[in-house]
Amino acid sequence: MKLDLDNLMEARDVTALLITGPAQHNAPMYYFTGGGHLTQADLIKPRGQEPILFYNPMERDEAASTGLICRDLGKFRLSDLIEKFGGDVREAHAQRYQMMLESLSVTEGRLAVYGKVDAGFSYAVISRLQEMMPALELFGELADGSLLQARATKDEAEVERIRQMGQLTVEVVAETANLLTTRQVRGEILLNSEGEPLTVGEVKRLINRWLAERGAENPEGTIFAIGRDAGVPHSTGNLDDFIRLGQTIVFDIFPCEAGGGYFYDFTRTWSLGYASDQAQALHEDVLAVYQDVIGELTVNEHCPLYQARTCDLFEQRGHATIAKDSQTQSGYVHSLGHGLGLDVHERPWFGKNASENDRLFPGAVFTVEPGLYYPDLGMGVRLEDTAWVRPDGQIEVLVPYPMDLVLPVKL
Amino acid sequence: MKLDLDNLMEARDVTALLITGPAQHNAPMYYFTGGGHLTQADLIKPRGQEPILFYNPMERDEAASTGLICRDLGKFRLSDLIEKFGGDVREAHAQRYQMMLESLSVTEGRLAVYGKVDAGFSYAVISRLQEMMPALELFGELADGSLLQARATKDEAEVERIRQMGQLTVEVVAETANLLTTRQVRGEILLNSEGEPLTVGEVKRLINRWLAERGAENPEGTIFAIGRDAGVPHSTGNLDDFIRLGQTIVFDIFPCEAGGGYFYDFTRTWSLGYASDQAQALHEDVLAVYQDVIGELTVNEHCPLYQARTCDLFEQRGHATIAKDSQTQSGYVHSLGHGLGLDVHERPWFGKNASENDRLFPGAVFTVEPGLYYPDLGMGVRLEDTAWVRPDGQIEVLVPYPMDLVLPVKL
Repeated sequence: MKLDLDNLMEARDVTALLITGPAQHNAPMYYFTGGGHLTQADLIKPRGQEPILFYNPMERDEAASTGLICRDLGKFRLSDLIEKFGGDVREAHAQRYQMMLESLSVTEGRLAVYGKVDAGFSYAVISRLQEMMPALELFGELADGSLLQARATKDEAEVERIRQMGQLTVEVVAETANLLTTRQVRGEILLNSEGEPLTVGEVKRLINRWLAERGAENPEGTIFAIGRDAGVPHSTGNLDDFIRLGQTIVFDIFPCEAGGGYFYDFTRTWSLGYASDQAQALHEDVLAVYQDVIGELTVNEHCPLYQARTCDLFEQRGHATIAKDSQTQSGYVHSLGHGLGLDVHERPWFGKNASENDRLFPGAVFTVEPGLYYPDLGMGVRLEDTAWVRPDGQIEVLVPYPMDLVLPVKL
Repeated sequence: MKLDLDNLMEARDVTALLITGPAQHNAPMYYFTGGGHLTQADLIKPRGQEPILFYNPMERDEAASTGLICRDLGKFRLSDLIEKFGGDVREAHAQRYQMMLESLSVTEGRLAVYGKVDAGFSYAVISRLQEMMPALELFGELADGSLLQARATKDEAEVERIRQMGQLTVEVVAETANLLTTRQVRGEILLNSEGEPLTVGEVKRLINRWLAERGAENPEGTIFAIGRDAGVPHSTGNLDDFIRLGQTIVFDIFPCEAGGGYFYDFTRTWSLGYASDQAQALHEDVLAVYQDVIGELTVNEHCPLYQARTCDLFEQRGHATIAKDSQTQSGYVHSLGHGLGLDVHERPWFGKNASENDRLFPGAVFTVEPGLYYPDLGMGVRLEDTAWVRPDGQIEVLVPYPMDLVLPVKL
């Protein structure tokens, strides 16, 4: 949690954080600013002190509304520096960072750099700044960084925002189910209101409308994958596909608050009208593993334990898994879940590269999403909920929703 | 244009481009992939050769649908490398990049790095990769880079996509005007359908719904700023503000294609029912300067010339400008415009830091957006259209729309 940040920085010997980029759709910056239309800003958070936001004067109102201590970047005007350094943009940016850091007396120790910006820009400018400030070690915290570890557990206000996103997500899922189960059907194909085959593209557009009406954004799109596409975990579905009865539909929806805030992540697998025996059997296996694993989750436990357990459970049911064959594309082929917050994928991690601190600490918000994929059989099944570890150590699915495979349709 | 890229790389002595990050909302990657649900990929474009996309095997269908030459990153499995290097994530990523580059024989020369990813990650990994591959110079192309210069001019297919976004943008603007002019009014305040004061937040939610219905996304939000907020260029407007007659409303809307594609950028300033004499005068000045400058734009000319000209014109009309006082926050306080494409702000630049190549080359797509800001008077006016330089050298506003200040309301 944010309250832990200074301790986490101290444990990792981090003197200060330097965060750059826009305030929207840039999780490290959003974490401090709470969003807002800051197209480019810089924030320095010295350990044990309040963060300082350096803003463009044209965006002074937006900066002020963050409630942070603000400094006007107009005092370190980039255009003047570029002119001073003969058009050398890299030098001008590095000099400006040096001025900002010196104004806060951050001149030695270890400075961790964050923010979603162009890789070439950050490499160029940070490497120059490192040359200019040899007493300050600039680095990226990759695996077990202080800021990502702070973000890996949420306070109750954050959890409520994620739950709100979950509520509106399942409202949209219910609207989608209602749409699909009330269509006219011709030759096993759903029809739209013009009597033409309903396409995945039309369904996705309605989903986006229903999300927007509720104040959500959908920057990463939606997976609505039918048949063989459902058998490939990240296939988002072909927009021109028709929607047929009796085929598995993997519907994975992961919207966020408008302006790039907190996400939710949710998947159901449906088969309209009826399901094949094979699809039924896969769904039963996935549901059983979901229930077993959810029941076993224990506060403070190491997340990768449950990935191993999930592989065991699927293998007991006769499915290939990446535990036995890391290259398999049939069976269980991905990780059990991931943390979720201002990024749709964040810590804690459940895969084998997780660090010692990827644990179900109180406040962790994470997905549980076992799945089985058989592209050669033209089907896949995934079930996913977002859960959190409550302060009392209990695991709670934030927004329950029925898990049924078959959605009856009127014929 | 993309066709020019090899020549631009040659002129800048760039051997290859390395582009990293997701395919959505990451302009350099989108430029090659055309979007798609690739959550993390790498692309190497050697000069004079086709680009190669390295993808995560779970996203193989999405990779294949880009039509690019694809290589499976499963062959360079990150988890195996992290294990091999004792949990050192930085080393594993750098080693994997080395393998990718060596597989394409990109081992010497100059490699330009691009892609919207975490600054700490890119600094850490690229600096390590540079140590490992001393014969290859890794760098960021900041000012006049080959890729940004290629993107600064659009082919006709790109222009048509931008124009389509413009068409739907003005449809949404017209829906908004219709909403605002057909409300009941009580004491100069617009009412919603429940008879309560209509708020900026409600209007913005409707705008998002209308955009989503038309297949657009709005990742950067909308500026809908009334009164004093209209007097601050990047103030997005207070969501709780009521909408009053006779106040300037700066409505700046800049949506993009779903999945992070091409943007449009458009601003009108409205005053509902009537306008004060001061607002009328400001609007006349901005409109006159808009028309003068649009009429003077000439193919191949240096963009900053028009920023200087705009400052002159506003000064002739008695307004302060940043040309005379770089710190002023009243009068004309920003740049005349900017290029627009896969980023809402891209080359060509019109400000004083523009490079020699920031010109109105054929194919340039850019905004023209003069404005006047008087926060102390509680008003601001900006008018913005997106234009392009046609192959015949003529300047064309992509989607014309009325410029009226006063929108009559039924009382």
